[in-house]
Order: sequence, then C-alpha cells, then structure tokens
Amino acid sequence: MPVPPATVSPYMKQLHDERIIIADVTPQIDQGRYPVKRIVGDTVEVQATIFRDGHDQLAATLQYGPEDTGDWHELPMKLLGNDRWSASFLVDHLTNYKFTIEAWTDVFGTWQAELRKKFDAKQEVTSELLEGVEQVLHAAKRATESDHQFLLDAAQAMRTASLQDEAVAVALDDALKECMARNAEHAHSITFDRLLTVVVDRPQARFATWYELFPRSQGKVPGKSGTFADCINRLPDIAHMGFDVLYLPPIHPIGRTHRKGKNNSLLCTPSDPGCPWAIGNEQGGHYAIEPSLGTLQDFKNLIAAARDLGMEIALDFAIQCSPDHPYVKDHPEWFSHRPDGTIKYAENPPKKYQDIYPVNFDSQDWQSLWPEWRRVLLYWVAQGVKTFRVDNPHTKPVGFWDWLLAEIKQEHPDVIFLAEAFTRPAMMKTLAKAGFTQSYTYFTWRNTKAELTEYATELTQTDMKEYYRGHFFANTPDILHEYLQKGGRSAFKIRYILAATLSTLCGIYSGYELSENVPLKQGSEEYLDSDKYEIKVRDWNAPGNIKEFIHKVNKARRENPALQINDNIAFHEANDPQILCYSKATPDGSNAVIVAVNLDPFRPHEDLIVLDLDALGLEANEEFQVQDVMTGSVWTWKGSRNYVRLDPRDEPAHLLVVKRAEKAVVETKEAA
Amino acid sequence: MPVPPATVSPYMKQLHDERIIIADVTPQIDQGRYPVKRIVGDTVEVQATIFRDGHDQLAATLQYGPEDTGDWHELPMKLLGNDRWSASFLVDHLTNYKFTIEAWTDVFGTWQAELRKKFDAKQEVTSELLEGVEQVLHAAKRATESDHQFLLDAAQAMRTASLQDEAVAVALDDALKECMARNAEHAHSITFDRLLTVVVDRPQARFATWYELFPRSQGKVPGKSGTFADCINRLPDIAHMGFDVLYLPPIHPIGRTHRKGKNNSLLCTPSDPGCPWAIGNEQGGHYAIEPSLGTLQDFKNLIAAARDLGMEIALDFAIQCSPDHPYVKDHPEWFSHRPDGTIKYAENPPKKYQDIYPVNFDSQDWQSLWPEWRRVLLYWVAQGVKTFRVDNPHTKPVGFWDWLLAEIKQEHPDVIFLAEAFTRPAMMKTLAKAGFTQSYTYFTWRNTKAELTEYATELTQTDMKEYYRGHFFANTPDILHEYLQKGGRSAFKIRYILAATLSTLCGIYSGYELSENVPLKQGSEEYLDSDKYEIKVRDWNAPGNIKEFIHKVNKARRENPALQINDNIAFHEANDPQILCYSKATPDGSNAVIVAVNLDPFRPHEDLIVLDLDALGLEANEEFQVQDVMTGSVWTWKGSRNYVRLDPRDEPAHLLVVKRAEKAVVETKEAA
Repeated sequence: MPVPPATVSPYMKQLHDERIIIADVTPQIDQGRYPVKRIVGDTVEVQATIFRDGHDQLAATLQYGPEDTGDWHELPMKLLGNDRWSASFLVDHLTNYKFTIEAWTDVFGTWQAELRKKFDAKQEVTSELLEGVEQVLHAAKRATESDHQFLLDAAQAMRTASLQDEAVAVALDDALKECMARNAEHAHSITFDRLLTVVVDRPQARFATWYELFPRSQGKVPGKSGTFADCINRLPDIAHMGFDVLYLPPIHPIGRTHRKGKNNSLLCTPSDPGCPWAIGNEQGGHYAIEPSLGTLQDFKNLIAAARDLGMEIALDFAIQCSPDHPYVKDHPEWFSHRPDGTIKYAENPPKKYQDIYPVNFDSQDWQSLWPEWRRVLLYWVAQGVKTFRVDNPHTKPVGFWDWLLAEIKQEHPDVIFLAEAFTRPAMMKTLAKAGFTQSYTYFTWRNTKAELTEYATELTQTDMKEYYRGHFFANTPDILHEYLQKGGRSAFKIRYILAATLSTLCGIYSGYELSENVPLKQGSEEYLDSDKYEIKVRDWNAPGNIKEFIHKVNKARRENPALQINDNIAFHEANDPQILCYSKATPDGSNAVIVAVNLDPFRPHEDLIVLDLDALGLEANEEFQVQDVMTGSVWTWKGSRNYVRLDPRDEPAHLLVVKRAEKAVVETKEAA
Repeated sequence: MPVPPATVSPYMKQLHDERIIIADVTPQIDQGRYPVKRIVGDTVEVQATIFRDGHDQLAATLQYGPEDTGDWHELPMKLLGNDRWSASFLVDHLTNYKFTIEAWTDVFGTWQAELRKKFDAKQEVTSELLEGVEQVLHAAKRATESDHQFLLDAAQAMRTASLQDEAVAVALDDALKECMARNAEHAHSITFDRLLTVVVDRPQARFATWYELFPRSQGKVPGKSGTFADCINRLPDIAHMGFDVLYLPPIHPIGRTHRKGKNNSLLCTPSDPGCPWAIGNEQGGHYAIEPSLGTLQDFKNLIAAARDLGMEIALDFAIQCSPDHPYVKDHPEWFSHRPDGTIKYAENPPKKYQDIYPVNFDSQDWQSLWPEWRRVLLYWVAQGVKTFRVDNPHTKPVGFWDWLLAEIKQEHPDVIFLAEAFTRPAMMKTLAKAGFTQSYTYFTWRNTKAELTEYATELTQTDMKEYYRGHFFANTPDILHEYLQKGGRSAFKIRYILAATLSTLCGIYSGYELSENVPLKQGSEEYLDSDKYEIKVRDWNAPGNIKEFIHKVNKARRENPALQINDNIAFHEANDPQILCYSKATPDGSNAVIVAVNLDPFRPHEDLIVLDLDALGLEANEEFQVQDVMTGSVWTWKGSRNYVRLDPRDEPAHLLVVKRAEKAVVETKEAA
C-alpha cells in the first residue's frame, strides 16, 4: 500500500499552534481596516467568540490602551454563554485607543471543575490530586516570591492531607485558584491577529446643533456685504434658538473669471459678489479672507464671541479653485490641462462650471499637492477653527482623506470633519470609515413613515452606528425639498423636530426658521434668489417664524441625555400611516423621551399608539406621566396603548418626556 | 506660522495608489480565510462593490481558474447598479477553483460618454476630440500589429475629418471602443487583495440519502453476528426505499478491556460483542476488520454490490482507541498519562468511558500522530471508500481537520467527509468552514413550526449556505427524540418528509422504517436494547412499516431537481400553528414542489395556506395543478389561497408537484 509520508510544513505547524479560535470580535469595521468611533467618557464593550475543541475551560483577557501614553492594560473577559465573551473599557481622553484579545486554556480551572464533579459524585480522586499537585508545583517555579511559597504549601497540603476531603478542600480553594491564575502558564495562548482601533472624539462629534449662514447676508443694508461683525450681532439670536455650531460657507476671496450672477446666471454684473465656492482671486486663496467680510482679526473676534455663548465656528473646506486662485499660476501642475493648453473647468456634461477648476488628483505632483491641503487645514486650526465641513469629499480620492484627516487628528484630536458627500451609499460609508467624524445623510429625501423608519434604523441599528455619525440637515443652500416647498410652516416644524430627535446631529441653513420655501422653479430643489449668488438681507423676526419652536426642541435636546445618544431609537406602532412614533431612552433608563409626529402638514391625525414598554423601561400596566415640552401639557398614560391627536394648526408633534412615579423607578431598578 | 512638512511615507504612497476600492466580494467566508463550496456543474456568481471618487467610468474583470490545470481566465464584470458588479463562472470539474477581481478606470469609455453628452447638447468639442486622439495614439503604441494600424487610422480620421460630426462618429464607434478596451492602459488598476477559493465536490456532496445500519445486526440468527454478506442481501430492500449511501459504524475489531454489555452496562458477558466505537484489539486497529463481519474481500464485495445498485458505502472515522488497540502499545506517546502511570480514559465527569482512550492532541509527538490518521484514511480510500462519517470531530483540534481533509482531498477530490459534531454553533460552523463536506445539524431537536422555519432559514438563507451543508438525520443510534417516542407511526412519517424535503441531505438509522420508538428509559433519547451494544435481528417487513412512504418521498427527491438544491426554500403562510408549508423551485422555474405538513401526529388539521406566488414562479390568479406524490391525487389550485386538510390517519403531509398549463409557462418565460 503506497502511502506517501506527510511533511510538516510551516502551515501545518501554524494550524497545530492555533488551537484556540478567536472570531467575530466586535466592535470591528471591515476586519479592523477602519476604526470605530466613540466620544470621551464612552465605554467600549468588546465581545468575541472564543472556543476550542473538547470541553476544557478557557480564559481570556481584553488588552487595551491609549495611543498617546502607550499605557497598556489587561482586563479579564467574562463568558456570556454560547462561546461569547465580553469585557468593557473606558475611553477617557482624546486619543486613539487600541485593543486586542488573548485567550488560553485554563488548565487548572478545568482540573478544578472536574475534580469538583468527581468529588461530588463520591469518586476516588487520588490520581486526580496527583495531577493537581504537578500543576501547582510547575506554576510555583514561575511564581513571584510570595506566591512561590504559597503554592509549595498548597502542593504539600494536597499531597499529605490525611483525608481526601481535606486535600480536595485545599485544591478547590479560591485563593489557590487566583494564585494559579496569576502564575500558571497560558496553555495554547493565542492573541487575536489584529490590533483594533477606537477613535475618540470630543462630545460635539456626536451631539451638536448646527446653524449655517452666509456672513455677507448678515448685514442690514441691501446690496452691501454683511461682515463678521454683523455675524457677532446675530449670535445671541442664534444661541437663543439653541444652536451651538455656526457653520460658514467659504470666507475666502471669490474668483472674477466666469463669476456667476444671481440665481447661478452666466451673466454677472459688477455688483454681483459671486459664489463663495469659486475660491481665490488676486487677493489670495485658501489662506485669505474676503476683505468685504472683515480681517483675520475680525474673524478671530467672531470665534471668541461665539465661544462666549457656548458656540463654535465651523469652516467650509472646499478643494477647488477659481481660475484666479494663486495656485493656478504657482502650481499649474495641480490642474488638468487640455491638449489646447487650457485648464479643465468643472463639468458634469452637458453642464459646465467655468468659474471653478477642480484639482487634479492624478497629478504627477501629488506629493506636493497632498501636503498643501494639510497646510491649509493646519493654518485654520491655528486660527482657532476646530470644525470643518468638507465640500464634496467624494470627488477626491478616499486614500487622500484617509491620510489627511489622520494627519490633522494626530496633532489635533479635537478637530471635527463633516463630510458633505451626497452620492451612492458605498462611497458615503467609506468616507466615514476613512476618517470623517460626521457625515451628511439622505435625510432631506426621507419623508414618509416607512422611509424615515428604515433610514433611522439603518443608521443606528446596523454596524453603521460604529463609524457613521449621520448629520440630519433639515435644509441646505442646495436642498429645499418639495415637502418644505408645499407644506408651509407646519412642514418646517415637522422636519425640524424629526431631524432634532431622530439624530443627535442636526442643523438648518438660515432662512429655515422663517419658513423660506420658494424654489428657483417648479421641480427644482434650489432656492430662488439663493444666498449662494447674492447678498441678502432678511428680517430675522419676520411674522410666522418658528424660532420659539426650534428653541424648545433644542432645549429639550440639551436637557434630555436620551436625545444625545444615537443607537437607542425604538419605533412604536401606530396604525395611521401619517403618525410616526419613536422613543429614545438612556441605557440606565433614567431618562426617556417619546416623540409622536404627524407627518401630514395639512390635516389633524389621531391614533392609539402601541408603545414597546421594554424599550422605555416601563412595566406592563404601569401608570406614568408624559410632559410635552412643546406645550407644557402633562398627561397620565398607562400601559402600552395610548391616544394621541396631532393637529398641525396647533403643533404637529409631541415631544414627551417620560416621568415615572418614584416608587416605580426604585422597584424596577431593584428588579434589574 | 510653523507648519511642519508632511513626509511621503510608504503608507501614504499606498493610499495614493489605491484609488479604486473593491469591497464586499461575495461569495466569501471570513474574509477569504475559508473556501466556499460548490458541486461540479455549478455556476459561481461573483459580486463586488467597486467604486472610486468622482464620476469616471470603471471596468472590472473576474479572474479565475481551476487549481489542478493552472489555467487562468478573465471575464468582464457587469455593473448591476449602485456600484455592485457581477460575473459568473462554471466549475466543471473536481478541483479547487481560485478567483479574484481586477478593476480600473475606463478612461476612454469615460471620454466617449462625455463626448456623446456634449455632442448631443450641440456643444463645440474640438478640444475634446484632441484629447481622444491623444488617448488613441497612446494605446496604439501598446497595441498588437493589427490593432496598431486600426488605431492610427482612427486617430487620423478624428483629426482630419472635415466635419466635427464625422470625427465624433469615428470617436464613438463601437469597433474603436472595443479596440481601445483591448489595448488601452488600465488606469489606477487594482487587484483585490485576496485569491478566494471554491471547493468543488461531486454532486453527492449536496444531494444524498443515507441509511445507517450495523452490519452485525443484518443476520437472521439471534446472537450470531451478521456479516457483510448479509448486508449485501439487504441492499435491494434499502435501494428500493431510495437510499444511495449505506453508512456503517466502525467495522474494526472491538476492545475487550472494560467492554460494555447490553444497554451500555458495565457488566459484560462473554457473548456481548461490545460497542463498535471502542476500536481495536489484538486483531488490529483502524486498518483491520472485525473478523465476525467478514474479510477485506467481503467488504470490497459489499462496496461493489452497492455500486451495482447505485449506492455507495460510507465508513465511520472515529479517532479513539480501546485499551487493547495496537497504538496503545506501539505509540504510548499519543495518549495522556496520569501521574500514576495509567492512561486516561474518556470521561465527561462524573461519567466514565473506561472502554475508550481518547487520543491526546497535546502530544509532543503530534508530528507523527497527525500523519498516521492521514495514512488510515488513505488506506480505506484505497479500498474504495469515498465517504467518511467523522465521529465527534469537535473534540479534536480544528487545525488538525483543516490540514487532514485538505491533504486527502488534494489527492482524492471526490472524497466526502460528514462531521458528526453536536455542540455549540461556533464550533459546528467552523468545522464546516475548515473542510467538512457535510455536517450534522440540530434537526432532530427542531420540531415546532417556528423552530423548523427558523432553522431551515438560517441554514439556507444566511452565508451558512456557502459552506455548511446540513445533514438532516431523522434519527441516529444516539437520538430517538421524544416526538418519535410518543407520536407513533405518523410522527415517523412527518419527521422523514421534513428531513427529506427541507434538506437535500437526509438519512435514517435502521429501524426507523419500522417506527422503532422505545427509549432506554423515560426522558432518555437513547434506544432500549440499542444496536450499539448488541447483535439484533429484525423483521424488516414487520407490519406497520413505512417503507413505501419512504420510497415515495425518496423517489420524489430524485425526480424533482427542486429538491436537490438547498438555497431555494420559501415558507408560505398558514394560520394553523401545526401546519407547516414551504416550497422549493429550480431557478429557471421549470420544477416546483410544495410541501404541506401537519406537525400534529394525532389530529387532522386544515387551513387556507397563502402561497408566495413569486417564489413559485406563478402568476397572480393563475390556475395550476398540484399532484400529490404521496397519494397520486391531483387538485386544481388558483392564486395564492388554497385549502389543505391533513389527517395523520391517512397521510400527514402533501408533497405536491406543481404542474402549470403549458400556455402559462410559455407566457411567463416570454415576459421574463
């Protein structure tokens, strides 16, 4: 019988040595290629499936540490059951954390468990005790001085006890178990083959309320550019509404060549200020400030004034140039040239954007191009800007962002980047994975109950919650949805409360509070007479504004921790297809908010909603109170079925804070 | 302003070069660590999410080939939409196949598409044409001789055409597009970072019907061992029932030390034959045959006789030894020794199995231990055995199986391994990933409608379908479920039709067809007077047997291709909690089977079932016929709601083959 001998290859050796399997480690994105995200003060719960052949007991530790100090800690993992293990660690400062897992066969623990079973079954265990003595003596050789003697004594006691009961008592003693855990060899020890990363951001990365305005539209004289000083004057109004991030479109000098006129017209008059995204002219490029807005000092004054009101400034970061940008002369190699010698302007055929040159990331000179954008960002960080809204990141290479954002955060871990990518899901997700702190979403186009439920669920209940912090803007200078165009003031309320309670990150573009709703033309999502192309002057207290509504919603966001977490949404049943009901509660159940929204901006709707009491931490048939922060009304509800009537002529939504009787709270905590 | 310069690290270079992202490649198990499984003749559909920044068009190829010949092929992938690409290849012989994906920017295709849009919008395109000419001339430099001239001519025509229309016509010509696709550089070319593997098995790996018997129980004289010759006599009966794999527990000499008596008794009389899994005595070990069963030649005769009836023999492969096994003397280093010098027998405290020594995979001599089991398998393969049922693989290291099964399949890709692991899911799944062709399942313990639906869904609709071929044994020598103990003959019919139609792999242990249902004791799943410990003689035609029922079900399995695929189960609604209805159809819709089972073995149930017509390829309101293969009855059904009444006193299940009017079939195909 010809049986060729097997050779022992390195692969065979590796298979032999990998006796224990560590799989399905969470949280983990794309097999550890990308980090997960947390904020300072969060706890990271790590789980893994850990198993081996046979019935031996395992032990495992979570190993972790912050990158900045290089500290490295170990925590024992606990078996949850079904081969799933868990341990948690706190991320307490602004740095990346790394973690991995070690597992091994707990030989002594296995032996103790078997000894206990046999002893309980009244079996003779002399031979077993000898095995234990061998293990203890072996561990003693590796032990610290104090443990060394303890182990020798234990071995001696197991060997010489006059009764087997006594020997077994020594063998099963907890002190011995712990001492062995400290000193015994880690049999079959294996460490998970990756170091996983947690990016830790400041709290504003997850919870923030944005207000977007064009500084030039903050003045009071028609045709005359508003300034940073005008912005400072507006801050108290914006702060009162409850916004804490003031986002400014590009503040740089605007190109003159092919400058666009009002409503994106190709015809431009001398008084037209141009579009802020056509960056750069003879007065400078991405490092410069458009003189009509003020000086660098004026800008810094705005930052300081905002800070005094608990707000911060977010700047636009748009990698593109007007034909008049200094880079065009100084670095022609960073742009695409046509065979006829001209530089390619931006196009989306047949549309042409002749006022903008895209940067050519196929440039042979990318090694100077990439660092230049790093310089630009570091410059504005040095001026005090810690948040950037990045324009169209999906038209630049993902690898570029991966590098750039890591470079900035390496030195300034408090910097926040919001990705303004509206494209297909794969790219939007990948940009978030590659380092963007926050990301624009499809929220403006999710308007029905089914759409909203499905989208919020995807963002908060899939692994997107680990890396994609979705920002719900109710409008933007580019997106005035038909729902807002046609739904009137109620529509603006409805969409704001949805944005502010479905997501921890939300925002509006100025004019929203005035219910501005006139599109460029039928079927367009562009605004008529948009800020993008002209200087506007508004009456910020125009009748019919919804500022107090926004104030109340934002106040509720600040006062209710449940609204500052994203992965805690629960949807509740309502038969009426226009009534959307959901809730958010803190993990400890101390704060819970129920939101019921009538999605129909025209007609009242009423329904019996069916609450998922578990999600709210409520007992079956428990009586509890709900207080509507919009009206102050208080109702007593009981059990799961409760009635709501929402009339858009009053308020289209309830934002209900759950108040439980103190007794119920205490009892539930005791039960848990 | 101190802005430190960025250095160009290798990582930065890598990020720069990875311009295109290839993600979520399917089918793929654990990031390519393990292969997916197919059978000869299958098509493997490969999908991937492929994207890059901006709006440039991409192209991608699937690259694949069989490992044995080393051939390597390329197929263009097609964009399905939303960045998802697809291509399929046939696996036409018994070997592993490898595949990967290349993607690149289709520069010329992008240029053509933009040219077309601009030309259609009546824009001036002189500069664009010059760009195209450059591309064509560049490709010409790399082209084959025939293409070279074609490209030069095209460039010349684009440059010199008297009218722009003519130049554009040349530029957009399909022949030019194809020629450029052949010759243009693959810009930003990237190849997926893994070679993925497809293990290709013979069809019996996926579709087979097993019958397990103890050869010593096939005789006719009480107390006298049956032989292989007796097995040959039983083959026609087994073949008539429709089984095609005859699985034999270990056929090796049985140990004498601590041999077990009837019903696993510690008391053993001289006439007790012992348990076949206590392998080895002075007459030999894993290479030997128990003399009372016959000779090696007798065994080969059984293989040949089975083959003549379209059946094959499956052997048990149990890595364990009786204390009398030759290995114990020849290779004491392969066993665990206690401090008192004895060898450790198998235990699951407080239970002891003193007739069995487990092999010690912690042995220092694993480099001789592993190859020995390879030798054993190759020996039996050489005798003509191509299927092994592996006993308790979960008590041996996964890495060992990974190595061993690959070693055997490398030389004998037609060998099939069935894993008999009953343990927690992580280990069962991992053994399947590591190389087992088929796997035992929890089927015997899934008895309610919810349990069956959930389990079949998990096996066939999750990624388990790619690597885990679940075997549904209705009983085993170790598992006589309470449902069978109490449900009588109907219960045996119900469980068999479930096994045979929910899974492509199913089987019974002999005696099932006689509805043997007496447990060792109340609450036990062991049989009373089990074959495992004694020689039995049965009347295989005892009154009340369900052989004809089994025959009909197995005949339907053979005649209906829909029952030979696993990932095609659709469950249909039935209100009655005891009526389970599901169907299977072939992908082309040419064959469809509906199964309706009354899970209550005692009482008749009736219901209006609600068919998912899409899953069956039927039109709404279409009239169609269903023929019950159990009774021959034919009914005309229409649309989704149809009535069934299932009385266990007649037959507890319908196995309905769908017959559509020929007209309907033709019309549907045309519509598709």
